[in-house]
Amino acid sequence: MLTAFGDSRSGNCLKVKWMLDITRRDYQWIETDVTTGSSRTPEFLAKNPAGQVPLLILDDGRPLAQSNAIILWIGEGGRFVPTDAYDRARMMEWLFWEQYSHEPYVAVVRFQRTLGGKSEHEIEPRLMERGHAALARMEMVLSGADWLVGTAPTLADLALVAYTRVAHEGGFAMNRYPAIQAWILRVEAAFAIG
Amino acid sequence: MLTAFGDSRSGNCLKVKWMLDITRRDYQWIETDVTTGSSRTPEFLAKNPAGQVPLLILDDGRPLAQSNAIILWIGEGGRFVPTDAYDRARMMEWLFWEQYSHEPYVAVVRFQRTLGGKSEHEIEPRLMERGHAALARMEMVLSGADWLVGTAPTLADLALVAYTRVAHEGGFAMNRYPAIQAWILRVEAAFAIG
Repeated sequence: MLTAFGDSRSGNCLKVKWMLDITRRDYQWIETDVTTGSSRTPEFLAKNPAGQVPLLILDDGRPLAQSNAIILWIGEGGRFVPTDAYDRARMMEWLFWEQYSHEPYVAVVRFQRTLGGKSEHEIEPRLMERGHAALARMEMVLSGADWLVGTAPTLADLALVAYTRVAHEGGFAMNRYPAIQAWILRVEAAFAIG
Repeated sequence: MLTAFGDSRSGNCLKVKWMLDITRRDYQWIETDVTTGSSRTPEFLAKNPAGQVPLLILDDGRPLAQSNAIILWIGEGGRFVPTDAYDRARMMEWLFWEQYSHEPYVAVVRFQRTLGGKSEHEIEPRLMERGHAALARMEMVLSGADWLVGTAPTLADLALVAYTRVAHEGGFAMNRYPAIQAWILRVEAAFAIG
């Protein structure tokens, strides 16, 4: 059986849970509160020296970290990973873009507002600007396409929806992005996200 | 023929050049100065709306962005991408970690010092701390292994070496990391990096 360590309030962790659920894997979920240092204990650091969740422990005890690496491992060979080499490469492009240009702004601001207790005026304007730049890029793409890559849902949609669907909790006015809002509903339906 | 847009001072761009060279691809390199806005012109944004280099244009004109997605596309099926599913997943883990926990500190500080003209005391201490945390994690792993994944060089080594080999230009005292220094020489030899 697989074991997943994760904080259910984290989009990065939920990506893993959603993929485990939709591929009907047998797994146990170990809730790991990132705000109380549970991912920084000596026991946890022995499993993942980076001190981060999500962390997946395979049947044989080997660990795997990084949300997008984990969903790729779970999804490989399935319907959410394109077989076409270019579509596959574009999916990878979005996965790296998500972690570099989206998550550090959209997710971080939401974390500061919801768990960090910061008010709107305490958020660095640069973080809001870059978050909006990421959302604007998605809006542009999704104004002309149902999915981020090709003509069917892929892990790119799953990875990007994780924090985009809760971006309003960070104060991002999502009514600016009607194409994103319609896409969120499509992705939630495709991946059975409740 | 492939076309690669890149700034030769950028580790992210050099990753692509090194992979194109070692796999003996037929390509043209279009030097693109990121400090003068060359990746933000309307012509460039039409190719990559993210406004970033490296950017690879395939034979048929289709674009591919994100350094690690590009080296995966180039390397797929070759000797630097493991066929074992777990080794492959661990390679992906390092590629995502590089972009999230290493590049934003080690590369950004080096950029600020070399191209941004900042002096040592103008660098945010938090960036140096996180850069050293990333290097310390690599040192720990490389003290017990020749390569980041398994027993042979992979794209994980290539991606991580890009900014690690020039980390000293950002003011990181690399004599703290003897295992990294030995690994840099191994990776440079494996990928014929001059």
